[in-house]
Amino acid sequence: MTDDRNDIMATAHLLADAARAEILPYFRRSDLHSENKLSTGFDPVTEADKAAERAMRQVLAERRPDDAVIGEEYGTSAGTSGIRWILDPIDGTRAFICGAPSWGVLIGVGNDAGLTYGIIDQPYTGERFEGGFGRARLIGPRGEEPLRTRRGVALSDATLMTTFPEVGTAEDGAAFQRVAAKARLTRYGLDCYAYALLALGHIDLVIESGLHVYDIAAPLAVVQAAGGVVTDWQGGSAEAGGRVIAAASPEIHAAALDFLQG
Amino acid sequence: MTDDRNDIMATAHLLADAARAEILPYFRRSDLHSENKLSTGFDPVTEADKAAERAMRQVLAERRPDDAVIGEEYGTSAGTSGIRWILDPIDGTRAFICGAPSWGVLIGVGNDAGLTYGIIDQPYTGERFEGGFGRARLIGPRGEEPLRTRRGVALSDATLMTTFPEVGTAEDGAAFQRVAAKARLTRYGLDCYAYALLALGHIDLVIESGLHVYDIAAPLAVVQAAGGVVTDWQGGSAEAGGRVIAAASPEIHAAALDFLQG
Repeated sequence: MTDDRNDIMATAHLLADAARAEILPYFRRSDLHSENKLSTGFDPVTEADKAAERAMRQVLAERRPDDAVIGEEYGTSAGTSGIRWILDPIDGTRAFICGAPSWGVLIGVGNDAGLTYGIIDQPYTGERFEGGFGRARLIGPRGEEPLRTRRGVALSDATLMTTFPEVGTAEDGAAFQRVAAKARLTRYGLDCYAYALLALGHIDLVIESGLHVYDIAAPLAVVQAAGGVVTDWQGGSAEAGGRVIAAASPEIHAAALDFLQG
Repeated sequence: MTDDRNDIMATAHLLADAARAEILPYFRRSDLHSENKLSTGFDPVTEADKAAERAMRQVLAERRPDDAVIGEEYGTSAGTSGIRWILDPIDGTRAFICGAPSWGVLIGVGNDAGLTYGIIDQPYTGERFEGGFGRARLIGPRGEEPLRTRRGVALSDATLMTTFPEVGTAEDGAAFQRVAAKARLTRYGLDCYAYALLALGHIDLVIESGLHVYDIAAPLAVVQAAGGVVTDWQGGSAEAGGRVIAAASPEIHAAALDFLQG
């Protein structure tokens, strides 16, 4: 198991490297092409998104062919090892097409017992947030820094983030606003980077709705490894996505959950 | 005048360098201290903010003692040269205390005829957006890239940004939402970085309210140098701040202004 753990971590870094190499040449290209994936709403899928997932799946096919893969772009491939990889090549495609470096490559790893390891990678800033198997660190332009959520912040002093002001349904938005009304500062727009800032100890809460399994796998692993608490809005497992709250401490998680539930 | 222009640009880069050196050691410090500048609202002023403005004023005192200086933290110093420097050491202090690299050092230069040159500097990503005196460029991790706003995008295909969903007063918010309802995508939370993305050609509109003169001076110079249009919501000068619209082209500026004015 120790060897497998080391191989999983080494493979995850190779996946992140491969995704970086595919995506960066597309970032801020003036002819960046986007498609509408759904007839309603605006969910652009770039060439970069698809190329990065293909590159990551290729690394897995070579190094770990018995593992299952769940990817945003190319769906699910079954495995026999009990290990599954959960990939979102570009989380935050709207930020990506705006040129804003708050998107990220998300790589989560789990088994039947749950998620065990994750990477949030921001290729343009060169920041890689890693958590699980005893690791919780940022490898970035300043070298290596520990990830540790902050403690002792009351909800009334807290900083809260979500990506879109509407959050989700009208009911979701109202629940979010009940928490926002009690927090000190609410900020929008950072996609997966918000979870990275939570793990770094600079914000206290991320509350979102409508997440897919591949949106939350890596952030969940990184935030938990840094000491945070990630659940759904009922306090249960967040691994399936949907309505998610990530908190810096058990205390602020409990306080925010009270207001979310009305 | 040519020599003076070169000296102004060289001095502006020295100011940005000095601000970077002062601010970066504070960014993402776990003990980052913030104060409430106003009894209402939340406007943290960090030690970094003050130290950076002092460092920039020191460079100006040595190199250009006859120029006027207007700074966010230390007010106005009169000059005799007709040249004025407009400094915001950390635009986006809320982003700064969250650890998000969308804040920036803003350096604007003007004379009696108006603003002529500006720098938006993001020290953590190492991006410096410069515009005026014939220059329009980003000096960043990928080297030097031209700044040029994009053309030919209809309002219905446009990406719009502002920092806070409420924008300003209820009336300001309603006006903003009239434009947002016509745009394809609206994003929040990027502070001065939104103007940089506009100058880079990746978004189409930035609409804000309640700006101070030091919030808009540098973004205005950079966006105009890149080919954009920056005015107040009546189509007049935006140099005094207040309600500001920055647009990638005259066409989208006119289209958005129509909806802003109701």
